[in-house]
Amino acid sequence: MALIVQKYGGTSVGDPTRIRAVAERVAATRREGNDVIVVVSAMAGETNRLLELAGNVAERPDARETDVLLATGEQVSVALLAMALQDMGVRAQSFLGHQIRISTDSVFGRARIKSIDADAMLQVVRGGAVAVVAGFQGVDEDANITTLGRGGSDTSAVAVAAAVKADVCEIYTDVAGVYTSDPRICPSARKLARIAYDEMLELASLGAKVLQIRSVEFAKRYGVPVHVRTSFSDEPGTWVVQEESSMEDVLVTGVAHDLNEAKITLLHVPDRPGLAAKILSPIADAHIVVDMIIQNASEDGFTDLTFTVPRTDYQKALGMVKEVAAEIGARGVTSDTSIAKVSVVGLGMRSHAGVAARMFQVLAQEGINIQMISTSEIKVSAVIDAKYAELAVRVLHQALIEEGVQEGAA
Amino acid sequence: MALIVQKYGGTSVGDPTRIRAVAERVAATRREGNDVIVVVSAMAGETNRLLELAGNVAERPDARETDVLLATGEQVSVALLAMALQDMGVRAQSFLGHQIRISTDSVFGRARIKSIDADAMLQVVRGGAVAVVAGFQGVDEDANITTLGRGGSDTSAVAVAAAVKADVCEIYTDVAGVYTSDPRICPSARKLARIAYDEMLELASLGAKVLQIRSVEFAKRYGVPVHVRTSFSDEPGTWVVQEESSMEDVLVTGVAHDLNEAKITLLHVPDRPGLAAKILSPIADAHIVVDMIIQNASEDGFTDLTFTVPRTDYQKALGMVKEVAAEIGARGVTSDTSIAKVSVVGLGMRSHAGVAARMFQVLAQEGINIQMISTSEIKVSAVIDAKYAELAVRVLHQALIEEGVQEGAA
Repeated sequence: MALIVQKYGGTSVGDPTRIRAVAERVAATRREGNDVIVVVSAMAGETNRLLELAGNVAERPDARETDVLLATGEQVSVALLAMALQDMGVRAQSFLGHQIRISTDSVFGRARIKSIDADAMLQVVRGGAVAVVAGFQGVDEDANITTLGRGGSDTSAVAVAAAVKADVCEIYTDVAGVYTSDPRICPSARKLARIAYDEMLELASLGAKVLQIRSVEFAKRYGVPVHVRTSFSDEPGTWVVQEESSMEDVLVTGVAHDLNEAKITLLHVPDRPGLAAKILSPIADAHIVVDMIIQNASEDGFTDLTFTVPRTDYQKALGMVKEVAAEIGARGVTSDTSIAKVSVVGLGMRSHAGVAARMFQVLAQEGINIQMISTSEIKVSAVIDAKYAELAVRVLHQALIEEGVQEGAA
Repeated sequence: MALIVQKYGGTSVGDPTRIRAVAERVAATRREGNDVIVVVSAMAGETNRLLELAGNVAERPDARETDVLLATGEQVSVALLAMALQDMGVRAQSFLGHQIRISTDSVFGRARIKSIDADAMLQVVRGGAVAVVAGFQGVDEDANITTLGRGGSDTSAVAVAAAVKADVCEIYTDVAGVYTSDPRICPSARKLARIAYDEMLELASLGAKVLQIRSVEFAKRYGVPVHVRTSFSDEPGTWVVQEESSMEDVLVTGVAHDLNEAKITLLHVPDRPGLAAKILSPIADAHIVVDMIIQNASEDGFTDLTFTVPRTDYQKALGMVKEVAAEIGARGVTSDTSIAKVSVVGLGMRSHAGVAARMFQVLAQEGINIQMISTSEIKVSAVIDAKYAELAVRVLHQALIEEGVQEGAA
């Protein structure tokens, strides 16, 4: 008898038939003797429908009111799922963000969860019923409705699991688990049975879309075991867990790629102290996240500075950089939106040298030029021409995962 | 400079274009120097869409969860209207039931408002912004979401107006005001400039659909002046107000009709004390509202008992009555669903006799048989064959309103 938190995404509750299928699965979990709390997203398509309505009444929809609007998506889902459960004889009660005080900061559209009141959910569950919780939403100190941003329901689920001290948080999604790479472009990718929080964090921030980064951070901080799996079958998925010593035996756990960045370069800038700060501060002030930054060695007191930003913020960032460029006397600005970031991630890199070298060697063999490099303790990322992205992922997967186990152990 | 509560129904906010039109009207009211609180319903069609979803996931959707589901309709409306206002430069903030503690009892689907916290709305309004309040919804003591039943947004609006001590509660609807009769069947019906709360209460309970009865009760209890008008023009509508002495000069204010009742008769029942109670108690226990009841004078110790119920409850009531009929030794049960109740209402009846007699005379002249009669201090109702309903309304309107003023004054 365990306390299980299950989270179902928008596709899993996309229409009444699927909602009933989710209810069947929840009922089955109950029948096995478990206590269940379910966290659900809005029905697939609903968020876009609401945003379209907003776009039709206002050119720039107010952020606070957008959250009031979007929160209805999950409210509809919890009501329907609770009804479906009741209808099949499983007692159930829905909870909205304000009813279990999912308290967040006041940053509308991408609020962060501060705390959750577990009492009401636990009371319902201990009474033998299923608690059905609206994902994605919370309330700030002044009872304003907030939402957590794209993928926020994952974070809701893990935060609920942490609050009630659940034995596991099951994330049901439309893929069967976490793969060594994207199976759509790398057919030899295989599902991982287990992955460490830190590896999952790197993969999530490097372009793998299985889990929202925040949800993994939460899981790591509170030690919540997360089980990523599909609602379309009973096969086990991938467990995201505390690091285990055996995990370091595997050199590379995953190969990720990200096509959503763009590169901006300032050419021939006078190399003075505070240069990077002067260029990058206005960008940070505009809440644009700069990912990789490189600065060439200075030649004759001049240098080039290159950095990457999300492609959605690219035009805005480019405009800002061009202004600064004139001020600081740069020779010019170049930019490139057809880049890809390919990354390899693995706890084993901590104890085994040579992964980066092997990665560059493999890319070189295919004639792929590396434009930028960034590393952390457990990952290496390289920016390359976007047209080579899929090829790079396949050859890196081949060399570092399919063949790499032996080499790493050697 | 007045404090005005405006309520817009589902048709007025039925699509983005209409929402912007409502925002324009609110903005105009602000520009005239008034403080404004707006109460809105769900977009037309939205409630039915949600109920259909519920019907597709559960055969008998749970009452609590149905309210969670339906409350999203108004939540969408307030968010969109607040956005539209902000977009045209009018500061605005939406409020949901739980955010201004519209506290109700716990009868899901037809909850009654107990109190409203005016502070947050007044603070927003005093700060120069428009408060946009979700109609139809509230919360009970345990923070469960409740809804007020059909037409509940009218009650929300009047209750909000009472709580903030508004100068007027304007109810925008798709008709231009309260008419002396239904203009669709009585072309000579005219719009009333003023009507007393008590007259409006009678008309609302007799089939006039302009205002929900509960909203008129609230208005009367707290003395809220209600102005019923259309959002499609600037013409004044009908004021629903405290009784004024001059109102008694008008003999009959309105003629109403109701086609939503059905008649059930128990034939030849042994006439013993407690008979009516025995027959009607199970019906009352099933929350079926019995409207008119007549019992014939006893003949040889036997009598007939006839009563009317809402047509939606007719089958259920008939089944119950047939069971009781066997028990108490009635000769049989007959029923009739094609009946109409026509009523005349007016404060003037208090001081002028003869309205009922005149009414029966007018119906008799047209060969319309009266099946049941019920009267109160300010109204007379008659049940007739449904096929004569429209004719009856027209001739009563002609005789008692168009010509009646002179006769009443004579």
